Amino acid sequence: MSLARFFAPAAGVTGDRILLPVDEAEHLTRVLRLSAGDRVRVFNGRGAEFEAVVDTADRSGVYLHIGAPCAPAPEPRVAITLAQAVLKGDKMDGVVRDAVMVGVAAIQPIITARTEISLGALTRGRRRDRWERIAVSSAKQCGRAVVPLILEPQLFPPAETPGLRLPSPVVVLVEPGVASGMSLGSLDVVKPDTATLMVGPEGGWTADEVHAASALGALITLGQRTLRADAMALVALSVLFARWGEF
Amino acid sequence: MSLARFFAPAAGVTGDRILLPVDEAEHLTRVLRLSAGDRVRVFNGRGAEFEAVVDTADRSGVYLHIGAPCAPAPEPRVAITLAQAVLKGDKMDGVVRDAVMVGVAAIQPIITARTEISLGALTRGRRRDRWERIAVSSAKQCGRAVVPLILEPQLFPPAETPGLRLPSPVVVLVEPGVASGMSLGSLDVVKPDTATLMVGPEGGWTADEVHAASALGALITLGQRTLRADAMALVALSVLFARWGEF
Repeated sequence: MSLARFFAPAAGVTGDRILLPVDEAEHLTRVLRLSAGDRVRVFNGRGAEFEAVVDTADRSGVYLHIGAPCAPAPEPRVAITLAQAVLKGDKMDGVVRDAVMVGVAAIQPIITARTEISLGALTRGRRRDRWERIAVSSAKQCGRAVVPLILEPQLFPPAETPGLRLPSPVVVLVEPGVASGMSLGSLDVVKPDTATLMVGPEGGWTADEVHAASALGALITLGQRTLRADAMALVALSVLFARWGEF
Repeated sequence: MSLARFFAPAAGVTGDRILLPVDEAEHLTRVLRLSAGDRVRVFNGRGAEFEAVVDTADRSGVYLHIGAPCAPAPEPRVAITLAQAVLKGDKMDGVVRDAVMVGVAAIQPIITARTEISLGALTRGRRRDRWERIAVSSAKQCGRAVVPLILEPQLFPPAETPGLRLPSPVVVLVEPGVASGMSLGSLDVVKPDTATLMVGPEGGWTADEVHAASALGALITLGQRTLRADAMALVALSVLFARWGEF
């Protein structure tokens, strides 16, 4: 049985004694029922992973002794940012979870004309904090030592210049019907260092948005079937990572 | 706005007057509130799609007049069967939904040593009927005119010979740790007519199962991260379809 893994942003140097974040401490003591002396692994969310031993676990929190560094799961060689229009209800949660699992470097939530939530409502609902917790949880489950950044939600097209910064090349997923879309298979991009995948909301992009997006990069389609909005990112990321040698 | 689509297995000949299945009739009258004279589209689940007009909609059911045939969304050129170990709770529902969306030809549920449900319990719970309804619903949503077959669940390895029939070539998804696994990118299969993708349960394959599977086809891995059991099929199918020119 492999050791339980915890997210410990303070982990950096062998020999340190560090405090686990409250959520992680709860997971360690209440769910897994671990206590002083138990061996675990920790990752700091920035790519480092260590062996560790529970030093104390009580009402003041869980302290760990950081042991030897260990080899984390390799990160993808192409750092893909997912620029995803915020979906309805809790569907964005699943997209964040899946995108972290399959290996994105960052997630940029975007608000488009047909997105059914405003920037203000996202802020009031602390949705970005929620997506960050989901990203941590998914990184724990899939074995990544990196927790992808959840960037500040932005309007698309941006209201001011410079607005949104998206790493190049940008690949924009469009519906099978969009005239200027080409199949992903014909995308002529040899393995880049970075890339951005843009995915629209349930109702799709408006004509203005397609126009703005076409100035940023390639408009691509994914086959002849209509994919569910909350599955588009996982399908497209899987295909892009495969094309660029990850699988 | 595109016309609503309904699953009508009896649709086959222009000019016929056919009865919609009860579930579809409910959807037409109660959810979409359509009635006599409204135009719709129907697909028969075997690849044909037609324009149609509601003739009568009352307590005796919904009858449609079948109009001109129309071009369905093209089916994938490679007919992939997904042989998926039945997952816990309702997770298999999501796998069926996603696999139909991305384009499988058939789904073969399998029971392995670490599957937490028996063949008897699947039968008593009418799970296959449920998966068939989910396949219909997903075909409606994604625009397919074919409803993939949900095959009778089978043991793996089969208890008797001949047991399970899986279209060749067979590709078996294994965890990153399995010694004889190779990356999907190095799979040397030019676009076949058929193929089978085998995906294990939450707890993975046993050593005996890996041995049995290696006699059937190639053991392949999908990157260095641990994918969730209910996401493996969608990721692997996306990559296989992309490799074989679908996207």
